Amino acid sequence: MAGNSFGHIFRITSFGESHGKALGVVIDGCPAGLEISPKEIALELDRRKPGTSPITSPRKESDKVEIFSGAFEGKTLGTPIALLFFNHDVDSSKYEKLKNLYRPGHADYTYDQKYGYRDWRGGGRASARETVARVAAGAIAKKLLAHFGIEIFAYSQEIAGIRCQSIDRNVIETNAARAADREAAQKMEQAILEAKASGDSVGGIVEVIATGVPPGFGESVFDKLDAEIAKALMSIPAAKGVEIGSGFTSSRSRGSENNDSIGFDAKSKRAVFSSNYAGGILGGISNGDQIVARLAIKATSSVMKQQQTIDSSGNPQTIQVEGRHDPCVIPRAIPIVESMLALVLADHLLISKLSTLDKL
Amino acid sequence: MAGNSFGHIFRITSFGESHGKALGVVIDGCPAGLEISPKEIALELDRRKPGTSPITSPRKESDKVEIFSGAFEGKTLGTPIALLFFNHDVDSSKYEKLKNLYRPGHADYTYDQKYGYRDWRGGGRASARETVARVAAGAIAKKLLAHFGIEIFAYSQEIAGIRCQSIDRNVIETNAARAADREAAQKMEQAILEAKASGDSVGGIVEVIATGVPPGFGESVFDKLDAEIAKALMSIPAAKGVEIGSGFTSSRSRGSENNDSIGFDAKSKRAVFSSNYAGGILGGISNGDQIVARLAIKATSSVMKQQQTIDSSGNPQTIQVEGRHDPCVIPRAIPIVESMLALVLADHLLISKLSTLDKL
Amino acid sequence: MAGNSFGHIFRITSFGESHGKALGVVIDGCPAGLEISPKEIALELDRRKPGTSPITSPRKESDKVEIFSGAFEGKTLGTPIALLFFNHDVDSSKYEKLKNLYRPGHADYTYDQKYGYRDWRGGGRASARETVARVAAGAIAKKLLAHFGIEIFAYSQEIAGIRCQSIDRNVIETNAARAADREAAQKMEQAILEAKASGDSVGGIVEVIATGVPPGFGESVFDKLDAEIAKALMSIPAAKGVEIGSGFTSSRSRGSENNDSIGFDAKSKRAVFSSNYAGGILGGISNGDQIVARLAIKATSSVMKQQQTIDSSGNPQTIQVEGRHDPCVIPRAIPIVESMLALVLADHLLISKLSTLDKL
Amino acid sequence: MAGNSFGHIFRITSFGESHGKALGVVIDGCPAGLEISPKEIALELDRRKPGTSPITSPRKESDKVEIFSGAFEGKTLGTPIALLFFNHDVDSSKYEKLKNLYRPGHADYTYDQKYGYRDWRGGGRASARETVARVAAGAIAKKLLAHFGIEIFAYSQEIAGIRCQSIDRNVIETNAARAADREAAQKMEQAILEAKASGDSVGGIVEVIATGVPPGFGESVFDKLDAEIAKALMSIPAAKGVEIGSGFTSSRSRGSENNDSIGFDAKSKRAVFSSNYAGGILGGISNGDQIVARLAIKATSSVMKQQQTIDSSGNPQTIQVEGRHDPCVIPRAIPIVESMLALVLADHLLISKLSTLDKL
Repeated sequence: MAGNSFGHIFRITSFGESHGKALGVVIDGCPAGLEISPKEIALELDRRKPGTSPITSPRKESDKVEIFSGAFEGKTLGTPIALLFFNHDVDSSKYEKLKNLYRPGHADYTYDQKYGYRDWRGGGRASARETVARVAAGAIAKKLLAHFGIEIFAYSQEIAGIRCQSIDRNVIETNAARAADREAAQKMEQAILEAKASGDSVGGIVEVIATGVPPGFGESVFDKLDAEIAKALMSIPAAKGVEIGSGFTSSRSRGSENNDSIGFDAKSKRAVFSSNYAGGILGGISNGDQIVARLAIKATSSVMKQQQTIDSSGNPQTIQVEGRHDPCVIPRAIPIVESMLALVLADHLLISKLSTLDKL
Repeated sequence: MAGNSFGHIFRITSFGESHGKALGVVIDGCPAGLEISPKEIALELDRRKPGTSPITSPRKESDKVEIFSGAFEGKTLGTPIALLFFNHDVDSSKYEKLKNLYRPGHADYTYDQKYGYRDWRGGGRASARETVARVAAGAIAKKLLAHFGIEIFAYSQEIAGIRCQSIDRNVIETNAARAADREAAQKMEQAILEAKASGDSVGGIVEVIATGVPPGFGESVFDKLDAEIAKALMSIPAAKGVEIGSGFTSSRSRGSENNDSIGFDAKSKRAVFSSNYAGGILGGISNGDQIVARLAIKATSSVMKQQQTIDSSGNPQTIQVEGRHDPCVIPRAIPIVESMLALVLADHLLISKLSTLDKL
Repeated sequence: MAGNSFGHIFRITSFGESHGKALGVVIDGCPAGLEISPKEIALELDRRKPGTSPITSPRKESDKVEIFSGAFEGKTLGTPIALLFFNHDVDSSKYEKLKNLYRPGHADYTYDQKYGYRDWRGGGRASARETVARVAAGAIAKKLLAHFGIEIFAYSQEIAGIRCQSIDRNVIETNAARAADREAAQKMEQAILEAKASGDSVGGIVEVIATGVPPGFGESVFDKLDAEIAKALMSIPAAKGVEIGSGFTSSRSRGSENNDSIGFDAKSKRAVFSSNYAGGILGGISNGDQIVARLAIKATSSVMKQQQTIDSSGNPQTIQVEGRHDPCVIPRAIPIVESMLALVLADHLLISKLSTLDKL
Repeated sequence: MAGNSFGHIFRITSFGESHGKALGVVIDGCPAGLEISPKEIALELDRRKPGTSPITSPRKESDKVEIFSGAFEGKTLGTPIALLFFNHDVDSSKYEKLKNLYRPGHADYTYDQKYGYRDWRGGGRASARETVARVAAGAIAKKLLAHFGIEIFAYSQEIAGIRCQSIDRNVIETNAARAADREAAQKMEQAILEAKASGDSVGGIVEVIATGVPPGFGESVFDKLDAEIAKALMSIPAAKGVEIGSGFTSSRSRGSENNDSIGFDAKSKRAVFSSNYAGGILGGISNGDQIVARLAIKATSSVMKQQQTIDSSGNPQTIQVEGRHDPCVIPRAIPIVESMLALVLADHLLISKLSTLDKL
């Protein structure tokens, strides 16, 4: 109810403040018998961590992964899996002078209004540091999906208005921008560095794709697969828009253009589609094609320019946020977006097993 | 779990197939003491019903509203409110020849894959007729919100690529397109009629706005207000994209441009914002400004043009959907979009009451 | 949240007031492909209905069953199944003079305190008439369980202190008391008639048994099978106590006596137990033995004797409840108790399918 | 779904295996602004810990409490509160020889059947060590309840058939048996020591009472307060029976005897009852009187006597459980039972705030 859990059956509960003692996540509902290892989780966390290139924050978050419960001899037990990340060496002093100020674009004001009170150190619960829990849980969701032949990858489709012109999956992890197009990557990095130099920030669009999803994921009416994905992605910090398949473009096409024609693949005995404007989802249920979604992420709110705001007493103030912020969060958002899609798909993989008597 | 319920505390459960005996909705968690009447619900249902103008389906759905439980002497009892809509005079004969065919853009194939079986009459559970339940429940949610000074309105911001250039709330219900700009409305209607004449269909974008929402709606991390809205809107049939505030545009702005500066209103003792790129939500929690969201809806999938598809045995077939379909669903989607936002806000209104000890 | 839904996956939502327009239930999460019929549901409802013998209320509730959604050509669709029971010919006049009085043992006072207001006609939402929804949903749950070889039966183990000395399943439906022992049945009926003659009422104990439940139903820690059963049974009107297996007796035995020794059945490749003090559940999970539970039900609160109470203004009043009440609800509670156990088991049957990777 | 969370709004998620790295609990939905401290939690944990008297296990569990998240400057933040208990110095060697044996009365067989696999060290997830999470969360629930004048206490009403003849709340914490009657306490301790000496164990009954609960807690139909309590208590390890108020006794009384007459207290403007056979609950909703429940707990399953069982291959084996087990868990169960009731009441305290428009 309080919003820190996600998923119906494969369900995670996240906790922790940015500069508190620890952050963590409990994963309940993962079936027994899945091989998991701290190493695999660490690989995903490394993709998220800052300080790895000039275009991300120089902050250090070296999250050592320990599995505190739910696994035994390298396999899940079917019981809750708890992962904890201690916040070592946090420096809250820079936030001391912000504790009564409301940073524009941030949750300072809304948390104070909601809870009457907040942990102002490092953004508290509203900090994007919270996404470490999502990525850790997402790593386990990905492992479960992989067991069923489902893979997920995301990339920076657009940063600062610069768009990938081609998609080469192999390119993504070879450039700091995590673009799928080498040329675009260079321009993106340059644009980020320029914004950084002027104390400003830029945003962008992440595209995420799942392959190998069979028909039948997603429920009718409210828990449609696209609705679940929309929620999952929009819950990521700084998210402002979500598209499935052709998205907003589809609102400008005609029905005859936008429908994907249906053919048949005799080998897999499944429908195949001439195009994928649907993004792999029809009537809220996966159709066997690639799941395709996009997430618009705004430019980082923490900029080093003077801004007008108020303090907690309502007095006007000017503010200039300092600290080691990302001039662009898109590259680091890639594993987060993947994780959120993985959590949705792992959940609906399990739910889908219960849809007909024949499968039980 | 099976996806037919929505909301945490103000929770609705929808049921019914398009050509089954009845559709309906049960609303659980509505506080006692709210005045409700069939008449008010009927007013909202009338806004949704087809057959009211040349640009919508000529189908007749005269849904008489009866409140079967949960109210007594005109007020809610705090117990579940059940509303039922009988499907009178349905004509399933036109669907007879489609029963083994998979209509492109529709859920026929995915329902068969998921459930092994489907009610092919009128789209069954996947029919947009299901939204009658949403609008009826939404009418009660709106009533609850109105009690707290919260209002919701939506309009056709764009149809077939034609965009409102101005927003006049009073214009919306005076034109068949439900545009907020009289000139745009005319062009939209023309575009719809043209598409209809050629057996085709068009899509568009709905903008929905809530006024009077106080700061503090929305929960941390996963059940953020924007995430909840994204799910609510994306669960509407034919939805393909959702934006909050400046949405995808924010991904192309710089942080210094996209942050809303914060001022103070001495009278209400609340923050005021110089702009509303945030769409009224910061860190997933309402900031007291207007809530603004947009929904991209694809062109109606049922077109009267020949399309390639397969039958349930995998054989290639051509199909030409007949029947009384909307050439554009945007105008009728307006009350549906409003209802989904109302359901989210009514739910979070209740949840927000429990956030601090001081308020209890 | 508001307490009108039960179950995690196989989930029902009940609605309706005793003298309102209708009562009903929506069953969500029932897999597609299950054959259901109004006739089978009616058979269970008939077991619950009053007016069938001198020891039950002479009231008439002839509930005609219609399946309003979720089924097509005799099989479930995987979509919500809605069942509605209209309240025809209700006579609320006898309740008119009780509308400001709080009947001892009833929910009148607590509903007024909670909701500020109540439907006083026939007990409103607190009426045991609500159990019609449980029995109807239970009939479908039983059908699902039967598909997997699971059967449930209950009987009046004790009425007015008279206890069955033997259990013959075939006897149960042949006597009005629904005892499993013909001799005890006669004494029970006599005791009920005596209580009735003196304007009083009696209570008793129902035992319910499920056969064919495989090992593995029930979840760890909180949603243990016994905990779920305890909630299910205690939610039945007038319930005051629940036991699993040897129950309160086990609290007076020694560990060495109370443990069931474990053997092995080579044919089924399952453990067999020398006794069943555990009631078929170990550590919250079914062990393959019969599930055995008992429910203590208090004597009907509506008695024709003068009682002290207050009116809604706090003034002392004497009250003598009239009307056509059951002098003992135990016989009619049998199908209700069975239904609640069926709902728990149907739910955990589905959940149990997701416990290990091997089964998926 | 997987059963490790409890509560609707005030919701806890528990995790951890007995001999794994850590156990813990996440509490979500606790309102902001509640003062909590590790010291207060530690006081409750000390009441649960073994090794404090000759009648409990000599095992040492010195659980140091740290609050990892959700609190700042001594007050709750409204965000999830995480508590972790590391399992230091566990000795799993004694379990090595039991790893393929199914201990009678334990969950070994059922966990293997459900998950195909289990952590056999110290009982794994099925160990009563898990209750440390319940007590820690319960301490916070109690703090919230105390803010509203609600207090909870439990005591050993009966051990090994020896029953308290009087209830003196002040006596409870002064004797190792946690009886409320000094004389009974002595006999209980003696009975426990006798059972221990013969390698056997005894069970008993815990009574738990909540004072200060206002009318209006509990929801209609399924989430009745008594049903919620029944589930909460029955989920405690070794629980076999639950009673509310007069419980099973009420099934042998007449209606005219068992109804509590209603009077009025002019000062509090509330109903007062001449007796409390109802246990403070009418129609599933608290009536303002004391909440009274009882829990039957079986004798400890780990006894030092030879028992018949099988190994995981189905071969017959004799087993004699060694280790440092409690000859009677009742005294240590007292804070656990209190905690479970506290969790239910804290949850329903919050839910009750949303029942009518007037209170919002």
